[in-house]
Amino acid sequence: MDKKKNISMAVIKRLPKYYRYLQELKNNDVDRISSKELSEKIGFTASQIRQDLNCFGDFGQQGYGYNVKELYDQIKNILGLKKEYNTIIIGAGNIGQAIANYINFQKIGFTLTSIFDINPKLFGLKIRDIEISDIDTLDSFLKKHTVDIAIICVPSKNAQSICEVIVKNGVKGIWNFAPIDLNTPENVIVENVHLSESLLTLSCLLNGDI
Amino acid sequence: MDKKKNISMAVIKRLPKYYRYLQELKNNDVDRISSKELSEKIGFTASQIRQDLNCFGDFGQQGYGYNVKELYDQIKNILGLKKEYNTIIIGAGNIGQAIANYINFQKIGFTLTSIFDINPKLFGLKIRDIEISDIDTLDSFLKKHTVDIAIICVPSKNAQSICEVIVKNGVKGIWNFAPIDLNTPENVIVENVHLSESLLTLSCLLNGDI
Repeated sequence: MDKKKNISMAVIKRLPKYYRYLQELKNNDVDRISSKELSEKIGFTASQIRQDLNCFGDFGQQGYGYNVKELYDQIKNILGLKKEYNTIIIGAGNIGQAIANYINFQKIGFTLTSIFDINPKLFGLKIRDIEISDIDTLDSFLKKHTVDIAIICVPSKNAQSICEVIVKNGVKGIWNFAPIDLNTPENVIVENVHLSESLLTLSCLLNGDI
Repeated sequence: MDKKKNISMAVIKRLPKYYRYLQELKNNDVDRISSKELSEKIGFTASQIRQDLNCFGDFGQQGYGYNVKELYDQIKNILGLKKEYNTIIIGAGNIGQAIANYINFQKIGFTLTSIFDINPKLFGLKIRDIEISDIDTLDSFLKKHTVDIAIICVPSKNAQSICEVIVKNGVKGIWNFAPIDLNTPENVIVENVHLSESLLTLSCLLNGDI
């Protein structure tokens, strides 16, 4: 398993895409696929694909291609999808509610166990049967329950202090939608979704003189 | 302006972050900043910062650092934020509604002009004073109005056909939240926000044996 170590972030970022395409192939009962065929579907070069997948072990066979089911299972495993994750959402505004309603995450093993907000008008309301609780109870909730991933959907100005409560209580994964960079210890993994930055990338590319 | 050409996607993806930090500095009345100080704030190395910013012109002065206001203005310009963008949202489900309610985009020049959905129950409802219209009227709307950016928030299975209506009517920018890769002509810019892929990156990194 030594091959798994020191995989670059660029490869890791491409894995979910491999996973999505392999799932589609599997659902369409495709048994095997060459790196060339996969390349036509996924848009990476065949050599890139061989190089990427080689990081994780010897999946392909010369002249035969990849066994779709086997490769899918391996990537599912590498992506940590053989486990279940307890998640909570902090901030039940627009984005928080949208994420809470996104039932697909549940299907792939991410269970939403609680939602917190600062607005008393929301306390007791439910999203998909999960009650919105007072953010003041977050600390005590975390002391009693195991949470693998905290999803931060609060405004920028509150995000760092929320992050500190989470980290103090041993949460190791943060999915951050607040448009700031959180300060966290090294053993905490933060994945950011910065919507404004994505939109500005689009306007930058549209602008044309790059 | 030759320096502007052939900027790598990696640099372009970092620009919105520079913009965010420079805006903060400007709002705090900071006049100038060295690449070293900026590095401490933003988390890129000072040499990375000098290299990135040098792509766009000679902003810095040895021993003086960067003029915050000037650099902010230039990056704002490069990001295409001196213009206004007409945007529409297609798909008024969870994500579509969240984006429609995100008032910050309006502030930086992205005006939402219309929202479309397939669900008759939503027709006529308003989000921030913008009425949700029947998706069947999208084609005729696009023939009458200039749209710079279409924001696709429909399920995967509908995204490509919607994309074709948009592209046929000359829209050049697509912000795509549907978890598929859209087929578009080369002159159309697509920026994807694939939430599942972001979450899987997090579970992959949390899993620890990478």
